[in-house]
Amino acid sequence: MENEMKNPYVRGIEHVSLAADGKSVRILDQTQLPMREVYLNVATPEECYDAVKKLMVRGAPCIGIFAGYAMAAFAEQRKELDLPEFLMEMKRLSSYLNSSRPTAVNLSWALRRMENVMDENAGLPVPEIAERLREESIKIHEEDIEMCRKIAEYGLSLVKEGDGILTHCNAGPLATSLYGTALGPILLGEETGKRLRVFSDETRPLLQGARLTSYELKKAGVDVTLICDNMASIVMKNGWVQDCFVGCDRVAANGDFANKIGTSGVAILAKHYGIPFYTLGPSSTIDMNCPTGDDIKIELRDPEEIREMWYKEPMALPDVKCYNPAFDVTDHTLVTAIVTDRGIVYPPFEENLKKLFR
Amino acid sequence: MENEMKNPYVRGIEHVSLAADGKSVRILDQTQLPMREVYLNVATPEECYDAVKKLMVRGAPCIGIFAGYAMAAFAEQRKELDLPEFLMEMKRLSSYLNSSRPTAVNLSWALRRMENVMDENAGLPVPEIAERLREESIKIHEEDIEMCRKIAEYGLSLVKEGDGILTHCNAGPLATSLYGTALGPILLGEETGKRLRVFSDETRPLLQGARLTSYELKKAGVDVTLICDNMASIVMKNGWVQDCFVGCDRVAANGDFANKIGTSGVAILAKHYGIPFYTLGPSSTIDMNCPTGDDIKIELRDPEEIREMWYKEPMALPDVKCYNPAFDVTDHTLVTAIVTDRGIVYPPFEENLKKLFR
Repeated sequence: MENEMKNPYVRGIEHVSLAADGKSVRILDQTQLPMREVYLNVATPEECYDAVKKLMVRGAPCIGIFAGYAMAAFAEQRKELDLPEFLMEMKRLSSYLNSSRPTAVNLSWALRRMENVMDENAGLPVPEIAERLREESIKIHEEDIEMCRKIAEYGLSLVKEGDGILTHCNAGPLATSLYGTALGPILLGEETGKRLRVFSDETRPLLQGARLTSYELKKAGVDVTLICDNMASIVMKNGWVQDCFVGCDRVAANGDFANKIGTSGVAILAKHYGIPFYTLGPSSTIDMNCPTGDDIKIELRDPEEIREMWYKEPMALPDVKCYNPAFDVTDHTLVTAIVTDRGIVYPPFEENLKKLFR
Repeated sequence: MENEMKNPYVRGIEHVSLAADGKSVRILDQTQLPMREVYLNVATPEECYDAVKKLMVRGAPCIGIFAGYAMAAFAEQRKELDLPEFLMEMKRLSSYLNSSRPTAVNLSWALRRMENVMDENAGLPVPEIAERLREESIKIHEEDIEMCRKIAEYGLSLVKEGDGILTHCNAGPLATSLYGTALGPILLGEETGKRLRVFSDETRPLLQGARLTSYELKKAGVDVTLICDNMASIVMKNGWVQDCFVGCDRVAANGDFANKIGTSGVAILAKHYGIPFYTLGPSSTIDMNCPTGDDIKIELRDPEEIREMWYKEPMALPDVKCYNPAFDVTDHTLVTAIVTDRGIVYPPFEENLKKLFR
């Protein structure tokens, strides 16, 4: 596959790539993990739409990468069309794909990049536009990999060989490209001989830690131990954790940040036991227009995820009330540093985050 | 049923009782909760042995109550035997029942009480010995209820109407007799019009909070909300929790205590958010021969409980390492008070626990 040859970081789990003939996108169906590694080639607009809609491809950056490749594949399939017909058809497909998960920022961002390439090259023959689109899709993937690589390098500089790292949820390759964000330093360390030991919270209710993080790390040869979320305290007390690495969904201007539910609890435990706590993410995740964590809206999800999803039979009476927030906000006073692709940001966050964007 | 008439506290979930004819024990099969409320009458020695062995009856005090009733039922069935044969047979059955779960202290304790009654009344006719055994079995149950009632009263004095209570695991009626320990104040409050709102941690990996606590409280009409363990932090941050009530498996002389895994994490969160944290248990749980929590051995359990038990399919690769401690130790510095049937013990615990036994 073209993009694999071009980029030295693409190896191991290759969960989204353009097929060798350029006419389809090869994906690892994440809904079947960890028990089945099923790779699918999706080619038609409907197949691509469903892949996103049904969470076969998930993780905001990963969806962006997928959308780029899908547009490149659509173009390759339509090289014989007349220019006006080609452009009209491609814009229609972009809009269709965008509707698969309208809230995911990276999806529309990637599709806009692809549309811009079409607009800028509208004077060229169709096969050449298709080629430019293919190049742009690979660029999107490579940029994500580069962003992950920088975060991984900055993160790895914070720890020493043999450190125990506790992580929550999944901020690994499957959600992004090769390295991931919070798992980046761990995977880079494994690659460069600075090995770390990892404790992965299973992360109820959707179990991304069990299903995805422990799967990814195990596949990469990392020494990973899966624990239930409520075991983080004893693992820290045992002296097994030297650092906490978690991802972030949105960072406010004062350093408060939203991440998967349970992250704030990990931060409080880390503070109690005197363990450094880092959040890792691309600088695009920092929202300078959001003053504090109080301004971040928390998504509430279906009680069924707690009561019965995954289980052989329900684990609570069907009418038992459940509170099921998808995220929580971690107070900036609990954060040791924010690790981004532009560098490591220490407190005072309000001041130092501003410097990052100067 | 005799014991129901005698005791005003027995109502609602009646999970262990002597059948009306005195010849069998009626139990709620706890392995089928929360989806099926199946009551069984167990009568033969083999049925009684299996009920304990297979966890149909669980919770140390509850097993003790069950053992007393089982012995009373065995005696009632054997009233026609000659005295020597009766005594020999009964001792054999006691020893057999005791082997069902040799580590449960309350089982052997209750059986010893029943044997003592036989020894003390060995001069009476068999039907009268059987009657004394029946009386003793009801006494064991009533004493447990009384212990729970006192803990409930002390606990209820610590909170005010409408308070939000966070609890972890199951220290309710199903594990003891009517009121339970940590759930005692909540159920007594519901009964006496001092209503509390409860947040029940689901308590991975065995989900006792989801399967048992939320079931018990819902049945009793309590306002209960089930949450995943990692949601305790956000629930506290939201201002919804005024007090934490948890049970205890062993309390050391300095006030450190062992309880279901995750309890120490709840205590640390409570301290962070400035929320009082109480452990509730019978004074027999306080082990003055155990200096600190470091002297309490933590049971490690099967990784399969984390990776796949309950699930439709495994949630992690079969060879992913798991760390699965059944309990953790909560440091006494995190405990506001220890609530026992002999009163409420405040820090300094080392000094004040001694006073309790003077």
